[in-house]
Amino acid sequence: MTPILAFDVFGTVVDWHGSISREVRALYPQVDGDALALAWRAGYQPAMQRVRSGELGWTRIDDLHRMILDELLPRFGLGNLSESEREHLNHVWQRLDPWPDTVPGLARLKARHTLCTLSNGNLGLLTNMAKRAGLPWDCVLSAEVFRAYKPDRRTYLGVADVFRVPPAQVMLVAAHQDDLAAARACGLSTAYVERPLEFGADRPKDVSPDPANTLHARDFMDLADQLGC
Amino acid sequence: MTPILAFDVFGTVVDWHGSISREVRALYPQVDGDALALAWRAGYQPAMQRVRSGELGWTRIDDLHRMILDELLPRFGLGNLSESEREHLNHVWQRLDPWPDTVPGLARLKARHTLCTLSNGNLGLLTNMAKRAGLPWDCVLSAEVFRAYKPDRRTYLGVADVFRVPPAQVMLVAAHQDDLAAARACGLSTAYVERPLEFGADRPKDVSPDPANTLHARDFMDLADQLGC
Repeated sequence: MTPILAFDVFGTVVDWHGSISREVRALYPQVDGDALALAWRAGYQPAMQRVRSGELGWTRIDDLHRMILDELLPRFGLGNLSESEREHLNHVWQRLDPWPDTVPGLARLKARHTLCTLSNGNLGLLTNMAKRAGLPWDCVLSAEVFRAYKPDRRTYLGVADVFRVPPAQVMLVAAHQDDLAAARACGLSTAYVERPLEFGADRPKDVSPDPANTLHARDFMDLADQLGC
Repeated sequence: MTPILAFDVFGTVVDWHGSISREVRALYPQVDGDALALAWRAGYQPAMQRVRSGELGWTRIDDLHRMILDELLPRFGLGNLSESEREHLNHVWQRLDPWPDTVPGLARLKARHTLCTLSNGNLGLLTNMAKRAGLPWDCVLSAEVFRAYKPDRRTYLGVADVFRVPPAQVMLVAAHQDDLAAARACGLSTAYVERPLEFGADRPKDVSPDPANTLHARDFMDLADQLGC
């Protein structure tokens, strides 16, 4: 029994692609929301890399998202958006919708486990998202607490340290094999969750199991079944 | 309307004196649980002062509580407790009971506000306490996140920074005028909550209003009334 479940958020808990596409299409019907969502997310790793490399000082995801957005807007014919329109659009990351199994799955898991986030998203973003979407975290943890972005070891080991348990008693739950591999290298348990539509219905994702993970689950309900919750 | 309510925890949300007295009496009937609770808590500010002054490096409350406890036990005839008995007793701080109005009051406040802790207690302690007592925090914030103990300005201003709001849009809720005064000096709004029995029924506390506070509430239900929740 693993007492602490730490969840990756973007893609694992919430559907960033579908939520952003829908909102962009609703606000700006002339724009390809699908393409904007993909381009925005594609800027995410390179932006964090600028922080990891030291080129940028510690910068929250809110601000990285905004930097990427400002670069993208002209390409999508939205270069003339006002400051308040940009801020509103940037906050879409706080308005991402959970996958259908997320809330009922978390409710079952919460009865026997401590549920926390372990996301590169910042604390305010994650808290506002949870309040809107009804995500019942016991504790919101973030790269912001550890001042380091995943896959930095300080983030995975930081969760074990916060709860004063050996790393193997923390299970990272994520839809991304690279995140899980980095957690395993720190001694954490890992559960892969299939999110085949993370990049949209037109781009089904490879969700093959990796036997190195402790568990492989179709979704959070399946994870709750496997953990006996 | 103040969107963020940040709660002091020990004494304000939970009854440390009553909970510790009861547990000590149940475990060790020969010991004066009331006196042990008071002595333990009396060691709290001096221990944090050793961290603030730099004499001790960053040390979590869990560890400060344990250092104080180890010093006290011989005085109470418990010098022969084993390591596991000491650890169990030290974890009583995670098993503190809420005041009777706490959980229903927080449920009302949560409907219109973001509720977070702002406690010198560490993240693990606060999370375990919340899970046991049913405290519905939207986010657990702690001195541990800001690497500074209240009344350091970094803690109060840290909450505003996490949520990216001006300090006045954060209201500190506490049963301690010194905590509230330090928060006001940083521009936060403040609500004093009467906890006349914080030190036990034999030592009623002065709960006179200070007009400098934004609000003065009898308890969390009264606070919810005053905030229109």
